[in-house]
Amino acid sequence: MAAVRQYQPGGALEMEQVGVPRPGPGEVLVKMEASPVNPSDLALMAGGYLERSYPFTPGLEGSGTVVQAGKGIFPRIRLGKRVACSPAHGGNGTWAEYMITSAMNTAPLPRRISMVDGAMMLVNPMTAMAFIHMARQGKHSGMVNNAAASSLGKMLIRLAKGRNIPLINIVRREEQVEELKKMGAVYVLNSSSESYSTALKNLSAELNATLILDAVTGSETSMLLDAAPGGATLVAYARLSGDPIRIDPRAVMNEEKKVTGFLLANWLKYKSLIFKIRFINSVRRELDGSLSSHISRSYPLERVEEAITRYRGHMSDGKIILNIGSE
Amino acid sequence: MAAVRQYQPGGALEMEQVGVPRPGPGEVLVKMEASPVNPSDLALMAGGYLERSYPFTPGLEGSGTVVQAGKGIFPRIRLGKRVACSPAHGGNGTWAEYMITSAMNTAPLPRRISMVDGAMMLVNPMTAMAFIHMARQGKHSGMVNNAAASSLGKMLIRLAKGRNIPLINIVRREEQVEELKKMGAVYVLNSSSESYSTALKNLSAELNATLILDAVTGSETSMLLDAAPGGATLVAYARLSGDPIRIDPRAVMNEEKKVTGFLLANWLKYKSLIFKIRFINSVRRELDGSLSSHISRSYPLERVEEAITRYRGHMSDGKIILNIGSE
Repeated sequence: MAAVRQYQPGGALEMEQVGVPRPGPGEVLVKMEASPVNPSDLALMAGGYLERSYPFTPGLEGSGTVVQAGKGIFPRIRLGKRVACSPAHGGNGTWAEYMITSAMNTAPLPRRISMVDGAMMLVNPMTAMAFIHMARQGKHSGMVNNAAASSLGKMLIRLAKGRNIPLINIVRREEQVEELKKMGAVYVLNSSSESYSTALKNLSAELNATLILDAVTGSETSMLLDAAPGGATLVAYARLSGDPIRIDPRAVMNEEKKVTGFLLANWLKYKSLIFKIRFINSVRRELDGSLSSHISRSYPLERVEEAITRYRGHMSDGKIILNIGSE
Repeated sequence: MAAVRQYQPGGALEMEQVGVPRPGPGEVLVKMEASPVNPSDLALMAGGYLERSYPFTPGLEGSGTVVQAGKGIFPRIRLGKRVACSPAHGGNGTWAEYMITSAMNTAPLPRRISMVDGAMMLVNPMTAMAFIHMARQGKHSGMVNNAAASSLGKMLIRLAKGRNIPLINIVRREEQVEELKKMGAVYVLNSSSESYSTALKNLSAELNATLILDAVTGSETSMLLDAAPGGATLVAYARLSGDPIRIDPRAVMNEEKKVTGFLLANWLKYKSLIFKIRFINSVRRELDGSLSSHISRSYPLERVEEAITRYRGHMSDGKIILNIGSE
């Protein structure tokens, strides 16, 4: 089978022919159909993950059909089903013609959901829901997101609106302000405008927006922390700038702000099975409405490098999809 | 009365003659005797605190005698007593001949405790106890402290030993390794040695030392985070380097590490009165044993700038005390 493989953190992606793996107990073999490129894929390919062995196949979510089942009831139930799927912890990913994963990491797709929509059912929607969950758990009165025009950003706008959680959306261009307001965003700030940092500081204080979602990091983190009310929690969830985080120690010491991070796989790791099932169901209920993504372009698997280059340059234009099979 | 005053964050300290203030309801007037210089004083003088108006008098703890009582039973009980004391939240501090504070911020000193020991009864011992509390609350198997040869560092060694919490002590010179081992420290690493960062990483993994106490910040923070096990919490509690914190976003995203901060006044702010009383009592019980500090030098109040310069240059030599009155 054809598989994308990377030989070291930050290394180039190679297309290779490798043997089709066999599912072990509790596992299934999925014939892949589609898989998106997510910011978390870029983070994963840049390295720094624990428990990863090389060469490995990237791709954190996708869709396909279960064509072979390992031992166990759960794998057998999935056999022949169309599924959304994600790799096992530390295992090879979705950017290959076939993927082995735990049957637990597959969710059957209702007929009305296409393979392409199903391929994006996990990472972005679950991330957006996780942020809502974090806002509630941490008793945050309001949130800030600095990648508001992304697919994830738009899902978050819909989810926050439905739950009356004030959300400050940061975009980079004036037309994005209009676009997000049209879809119902109340607070949208353009980071290119002159009054931006003052506006962010004032609005954050007014709404007591203490959950700061930072997809950019680098010098942006220090600006966001500075604008945040005392006691705020900043969550780095992507590192689009590629730069290190630089912060004034007084922000964490004197103003009691916290710098934390988020990756979906890590966040789910210690959650109970019951929590995961409930959580996935709450995501699925919203799939038709709040949680669908706009597709910008699709590429065949062998053009993965081109797909990634396009994605890096046009992150807020919609999703990039890898078409692996055909439905 | 003579009082040390600062007119802006980071500004020089002026000795001035100002009127003796009068205690309001619930307050007492303390005739000050002694006050130490703490890292938290340096942090406070550098600015960044919320709710601070200038000019203000620094000094976060001290000892003296209550010479005047405002309205209320509690102030009247303290009248005439020798006390350890700290300023009211946002109020003027201990580096003056007299200080007004809330009667709640004073603790009577038993006769066996000298004014000098009493002057250091609050900040360092309570900080050390707070770290022990954080280790237990956060279920951390072990701790790391990178200012292990300081007065606070030595208290922490005694407290952690008494509670069987593994503590990795980081010092800068070989003779400090010997000194700390003699007083019972089990794990002491010299940051000047070649094998340091590997040794820290291995030992941290072995002990699962996930509470990292960072008094230095700057580039040290990134090194400490890198050596820490996944999921670790770094607590910046002083910024001896004076440099900004610089960290790899992957540390917080992919490895689930957190960067937080600690200042005693902030930490105590939202604790209940019952908690505070219990906490102060647990500190007082240890005062004769684990929690006494070595005094390096004392200076009269008018030589405060000289005292601070000395302190900055010789932080691990013992405490610097300002003698304000005479017992």
